[in-house]
Amino acid sequence: MGSPTATLLISCPDQQGLVAKIANFIYANGGNITHADQHRDEAAGLFLTRIEWQLAGFNLPRDLIGPAFNAIAQPLGASWQLRFSDAIPRLAIWVSRQNHCLLDLLWRHQAGEFLGEIPLIMSNHPDLAAIAEQFGIDYYHLPITKANKSEQEAKQLMLLQKHNIDLVVLAKYMQILSADFVQQFPHVINIHHSFLPAFVGANPYHRAYERGVKIIGATAHYVTTDLDAGPIIEQDVVRISHRDEVSDLIRKGKDLERMVLARAVRLHLQNRILVYGNRTVVFA
Amino acid sequence: MGSPTATLLISCPDQQGLVAKIANFIYANGGNITHADQHRDEAAGLFLTRIEWQLAGFNLPRDLIGPAFNAIAQPLGASWQLRFSDAIPRLAIWVSRQNHCLLDLLWRHQAGEFLGEIPLIMSNHPDLAAIAEQFGIDYYHLPITKANKSEQEAKQLMLLQKHNIDLVVLAKYMQILSADFVQQFPHVINIHHSFLPAFVGANPYHRAYERGVKIIGATAHYVTTDLDAGPIIEQDVVRISHRDEVSDLIRKGKDLERMVLARAVRLHLQNRILVYGNRTVVFA
Amino acid sequence: MGSPTATLLISCPDQQGLVAKIANFIYANGGNITHADQHRDEAAGLFLTRIEWQLAGFNLPRDLIGPAFNAIAQPLGASWQLRFSDAIPRLAIWVSRQNHCLLDLLWRHQAGEFLGEIPLIMSNHPDLAAIAEQFGIDYYHLPITKANKSEQEAKQLMLLQKHNIDLVVLAKYMQILSADFVQQFPHVINIHHSFLPAFVGANPYHRAYERGVKIIGATAHYVTTDLDAGPIIEQDVVRISHRDEVSDLIRKGKDLERMVLARAVRLHLQNRILVYGNRTVVFA
Amino acid sequence: MGSPTATLLISCPDQQGLVAKIANFIYANGGNITHADQHRDEAAGLFLTRIEWQLAGFNLPRDLIGPAFNAIAQPLGASWQLRFSDAIPRLAIWVSRQNHCLLDLLWRHQAGEFLGEIPLIMSNHPDLAAIAEQFGIDYYHLPITKANKSEQEAKQLMLLQKHNIDLVVLAKYMQILSADFVQQFPHVINIHHSFLPAFVGANPYHRAYERGVKIIGATAHYVTTDLDAGPIIEQDVVRISHRDEVSDLIRKGKDLERMVLARAVRLHLQNRILVYGNRTVVFA
Repeated sequence: MGSPTATLLISCPDQQGLVAKIANFIYANGGNITHADQHRDEAAGLFLTRIEWQLAGFNLPRDLIGPAFNAIAQPLGASWQLRFSDAIPRLAIWVSRQNHCLLDLLWRHQAGEFLGEIPLIMSNHPDLAAIAEQFGIDYYHLPITKANKSEQEAKQLMLLQKHNIDLVVLAKYMQILSADFVQQFPHVINIHHSFLPAFVGANPYHRAYERGVKIIGATAHYVTTDLDAGPIIEQDVVRISHRDEVSDLIRKGKDLERMVLARAVRLHLQNRILVYGNRTVVFA
Repeated sequence: MGSPTATLLISCPDQQGLVAKIANFIYANGGNITHADQHRDEAAGLFLTRIEWQLAGFNLPRDLIGPAFNAIAQPLGASWQLRFSDAIPRLAIWVSRQNHCLLDLLWRHQAGEFLGEIPLIMSNHPDLAAIAEQFGIDYYHLPITKANKSEQEAKQLMLLQKHNIDLVVLAKYMQILSADFVQQFPHVINIHHSFLPAFVGANPYHRAYERGVKIIGATAHYVTTDLDAGPIIEQDVVRISHRDEVSDLIRKGKDLERMVLARAVRLHLQNRILVYGNRTVVFA
Repeated sequence: MGSPTATLLISCPDQQGLVAKIANFIYANGGNITHADQHRDEAAGLFLTRIEWQLAGFNLPRDLIGPAFNAIAQPLGASWQLRFSDAIPRLAIWVSRQNHCLLDLLWRHQAGEFLGEIPLIMSNHPDLAAIAEQFGIDYYHLPITKANKSEQEAKQLMLLQKHNIDLVVLAKYMQILSADFVQQFPHVINIHHSFLPAFVGANPYHRAYERGVKIIGATAHYVTTDLDAGPIIEQDVVRISHRDEVSDLIRKGKDLERMVLARAVRLHLQNRILVYGNRTVVFA
Repeated sequence: MGSPTATLLISCPDQQGLVAKIANFIYANGGNITHADQHRDEAAGLFLTRIEWQLAGFNLPRDLIGPAFNAIAQPLGASWQLRFSDAIPRLAIWVSRQNHCLLDLLWRHQAGEFLGEIPLIMSNHPDLAAIAEQFGIDYYHLPITKANKSEQEAKQLMLLQKHNIDLVVLAKYMQILSADFVQQFPHVINIHHSFLPAFVGANPYHRAYERGVKIIGATAHYVTTDLDAGPIIEQDVVRISHRDEVSDLIRKGKDLERMVLARAVRLHLQNRILVYGNRTVVFA
C-alpha cells in the first residue's frame, strides 16, 4: 500500500518523444516513477500508457498536476485521466437474487483486497437485504417492470448521485440497463456468465449445455448500450465433461463468475484499465 | 499396447440391468474387462457406455461377437459399434496451404502416438506436396472452384473408397464440404480455429482481435451439414493480451489447433467417443 | 438430488468376471445402476471401481446390503466401503487465523453445494469465533503448545467422538497433527498452499517467490503421518509474473486454496475417492 | 517484422529520474520508442527496464550507441545490454535421443516464429543425425562418458566458438553440463520435464506418477552450475488423472516440453528476458 501515488492513463496519437515528455514532466517536478508501461496500437496509430509516481517529494500540489499536465497533453492531442491512490472510490453493487458474487466482493473488500467504499447495494429483488444488513450497507429494493423501468432508472441515477458513486458493479444483476442510463452513468462493470462472444444474452449455461461445449467461461466487461458487447476486461474458463449437467455448469460457473468479476473490479480500482474503441489495455 | 482388445460403444434407452447384461455377455464368454465406463443422460433417457475387454481367452471368434451381442442388444433397443484394437484404421488428411496441423499429425503418427495408416493426403492447393513426399504418402491436388465443386467431391469420394479410408481429418482444409458429401461420408473431423460457438465461419482470429477477447481457443468437431455446428470433441484455450497482434493470435492459435486436433483424432482412433444428438461422450 | 442411492467403492486383486459379479449382485436384487466406473492399475494388479444404484425398488433392506455383498467380496479378496447418499456426513472444520477457506466452505454448504452437517469448528486461535457464531456452529478454542499438544489432541479426539464427526477438514489449520492422532482419526483432508511436492513444509509462497516460479499451486490431500506426503485428491495452479510480490502470491493463492479444498471435500462427500497405496482414484 | 530496432535491457539501483534520463537519451537522438516497460523490485532496491526504439531516423550510428549510453549508465551504476533486432542470433541445439523438441524448434524456425540461425546440432547419440541432414544442419556426435567428459566439453566449447554460437538450447539433452563449462559459456537454456522445483533430477515423470500428482508440468530455465536450479523463464502444466500411466505422462509431457521450450527461446531471442539474482523479469 505504501505512500500515496498519482497515476496517469494516457491515450494519444503516436509521435516521437512521448515517453520522454511525460517522464520529464514527472522528473522535473521531483516525482519518482514506480510503474511505467506503454502500448502502441499500430493499426490505430495510438500510443497508450500508464505511469504512476510517488506523491511524496513531488513539487506540484495535487490540484495543479492536472492543469500542468494538460499544458503538455493538449499540443500532443492526448486524452488522459489522473487518479490518486488514496482517493477512495465509491462503489454501488447491484444484484438480483444470486448472492455468490456479492458475498465474494464483500469478503474481498473486508480482506483488504481492494480499496473502496461500498455505501450502497441495489436490487430488483428483496432477497439479499439480510447480507447488506450484516455488512452494514444500505440496501435499496427497486423492482423493475416494463412499465416502471424509466422511472426506476431515474431513482437509481439519483441514488448514485446522492451517494457519490464512482463505479457500479453488476454482480449478477439480471436486468438490462437502458441506453439512456448508460449514457448518463457510463462507469458500469458487468459479469456475463459465458465466454463472450459465445452465448450472448439469456441462459448461457443452458445453451452451452445444449451445444455440447467442453469448456465454459465468464466475462467481465464495461457496459455499453449494446448488450454484452462492451469492452472486455477479463475472462476465464473451466473445463467440463459429459458428466456435468446444467446444474453443474451453473455451480462451476459461479466460481468463475466471482473470480473474474473480482479481478476486473480490482484492476479498475487500481486504475490499470485503459479503454479505447471497444477494447481495453490492461496494465497488469 | 499389449494384447488385442474388443471395444463396444453402446447407446440404449435407459432400463434396469443393462450393466449386468453387458458384463455377463463378456464374462460368460471368458472375456476379461479392462475398461468399463458408463454415462446416463437423464434428460434424454439414455444409457451410454464403453466397454473394452481382452480378446485373448475370449471364447467367441471375432466374426461372431457382433451377431452374438446383437441378440442381446436388439431387445434392449440399443445401437452399438464393435471395434478391435488391432484393426488398423485408415486416415486421409486434407489440407490447404498451412502445414502445422499436417506436420504435427505426421510426427505423432511416426512417434506411435496413434495407431493408423495414412495412405492419402488431399489438398485444394499444391503447396504441401513436398511434405507428403517426404513421408511417403500419396498427395492428390484437387483445386476447388464454385463450378467444379460437385465434380471434385465425386473424385474425392472415389479416392476415399479406393483407399478404404475410415476417417477424414480436415487439418486446416479451408473449404466447406457440401451436405451431399457429408451424407455420403460422415466420418470427418475438423479443426476450427476458434472457441466455438464464438466466431463461427471465416477469419475467427481477426474477429477475436476486433472483439478484444482475452482468451482465444480452438475446437475439434465432427463435420455435419451445418457449418461449424457439429458435435464438439475437444476444445482448448490460451490467454492473450493487448500486446498480441492478429499475427500473434494466429501464431498462438496454431499451437492450440495442432494440440486440439491431435487429441480429438487420438480419442476417435481409440474408440473413446460416442456421439448422440449433437453431443459427444468422451470416455477418456 | 433425486431419490437415495447406495454407492460401493471396491478395490480388489484383478481377475476375470469382477464387473459381471458386482453388476449381477445389484441387478439380481432389483437395483438400477446410475453410475459405474472402473480402473485397473496394471502395475499394482488391482481393480478399482465405484458403482452407484438407486435404492428405490432394491430388494435388500439397507442393513443387509453389506453382509450380502461381503459374501461376494470375500472370495474375491476385495475390500469395500458402502455408503448411502442420504446419510448425512458430519464435518469438523479446523482453522487457525485465516478465514477464507472457512467462509468459502460455509457459503458452499449454505448454497447446497455439498451435503453434510458442520456441528463443530475447532481452532488453536480465538480469531474466527465470530464467524462460527454467525453460522450457528460451536467453536472450540484449543491453543497448542509443545507442552500441551498431546493433552489437547486427546481433547480434540474426544470432541470428534462426542460430535460423531466423520471428516475433519483442515481449512488452513497451521498445526501439524501427531502421528498418534492421525492413526486414531484417519479421515482428515488438508489444504496445502503449494503445488506439492514442491515447497513441502512452511512458508511455501515465500519460497515460491524466492525460487522465481512462474506458476503457483495448491494441493488438497488426505493427512497421513508423513507431513504433506499423503494421497493427493486435487490440485490447481495459477500463473504469476515478476510483478507479483509475495503478498500477491498469498492473495492469488487464497483463491486457489478455497477452490481446491472445496472440490476435494465435495468429491469426498460424494464418495468419489478411492485411496490405495499413496494414490487416489477420483471417479469424477 | 518492420524496420530494425534497438533494445536496451537495463538493471540499476533504484533512484529518481531513471525513466526520464533513459527516454531523453533516445528522444534527444531522434529515436521513436516502440516498447517501454519497467519493473521495480522494492526488496532488492532495483529498477529493471526494457526499452526498444526504431533505428530509422536515429542520429547515432550503431557503434556509438553503446558508448554514448554508457556515459549515462555509469553514473547511475546501471548494468545494461544493447541488442539490434536485425542482428541474427546463432543457436546450437543439443539433443540426446528424443526428437520432439528438436523437430518443434526446427519447424517453428522454418515457419518464421523466431529469428536466428541454427548452424549446429550436437548430440551424445547418433540417433537424430537424419533430422539434421534433412534440415541441412551440421550434426556433431560427441558421446559422453565419465572418463571423456572434460575432453568432450572442450571440443564442444571449441565448436561453439568456431560457429559463433550465441545461445545453446538443450532440447532434451540428457547430460549434466559441468560447472566449468557453464562458467565459460553461460548462455544456455534447458527444458526440464517437471514443474520445478518439484522433481528436480532424474525421471520426473516416474516420480510424478509415484507421488500421485494430478497435474504435471515443464520448466524452461537458464542453466547454472546448480542442477535444475537456474533462473526460470517459463513453465506450463497439464492436468492428468488416475487413468494416465507413466507412458501417458511422458506423452502429455512432450507437448508441454516443446511448447514451453519454444516460448522460452522466442522470449530470449526477442531480448525480453532480464536475469537478476536467480530470477527473471519477462517483458512479454
